[in-house]
Amino acid sequence: RRTDRRSDCPVNFALQLLGDSWSLLVIRDLMFKGKRTYAEFAGSEERISTNILADRLRSLVRAGLVRREGRGRGTRYSLTEKGVDLLPVLVEMILWSARHDPRTATPAEFIDQATNDREGLLAHLRDELMASHLERGAV
Amino acid sequence: RRTDRRSDCPVNFALQLLGDSWSLLVIRDLMFKGKRTYAEFAGSEERISTNILADRLRSLVRAGLVRREGRGRGTRYSLTEKGVDLLPVLVEMILWSARHDPRTATPAEFIDQATNDREGLLAHLRDELMASHLERGAV
Repeated sequence: RRTDRRSDCPVNFALQLLGDSWSLLVIRDLMFKGKRTYAEFAGSEERISTNILADRLRSLVRAGLVRREGRGRGTRYSLTEKGVDLLPVLVEMILWSARHDPRTATPAEFIDQATNDREGLLAHLRDELMASHLERGAV
Repeated sequence: RRTDRRSDCPVNFALQLLGDSWSLLVIRDLMFKGKRTYAEFAGSEERISTNILADRLRSLVRAGLVRREGRGRGTRYSLTEKGVDLLPVLVEMILWSARHDPRTATPAEFIDQATNDREGLLAHLRDELMASHLERGAV
């Protein structure tokens, strides 16, 4: 397992597990876009290269954020509970971008709900994620 | 300015501006550790290399997250309002690490307050950051 941690700072811990921005885009695909396969991740708008994608998927599995099931063409990826638990981090990123970037297109309902009922939105999204990622026999 | 955005996804927008994990560690140093100088960032526990540090500081200034004032040995860095506004993202990272890493040492009071009075904690931290980073003549 990873022992070469740069420090025991909690921000550093999160950043070392997430590795880099490509890892978080894979988490995003699993969390908000319903993607489950290598081909689906590779088809994302941001055009991640296949060698980076394979490397980041391995790191995410090793870090315990992503689960890999099946083999070959049947391989499916899903979030572990530890991965689902990153939801508030990604939601805050989305809200920050909505405040500072006129071009990113976040639905107004999402921003309204996050502003007026943050806990309710997080609970709802978490329930959905737990159901779709952690249920048995979903793959 | 940056025009080569990978997509207009709000998660991608945040990740492209933050660039990589070293950038977020510099934000952390400015936000939570009161650091303001190149030498202070370079002295962080994680031992960022000087060429990466110089590069990330330039990117953060270009992205409008960090302000650079003064020259030579008198150079001071501080967060812009857009940088201060990343506070909820970092707080969620800290809480996630606290939940999933026994080794990171986050003060229990911080976790208690974030759990019981998240809005109050964020407002308090934001006020402190705005005062120490955005006031005139502080450098």
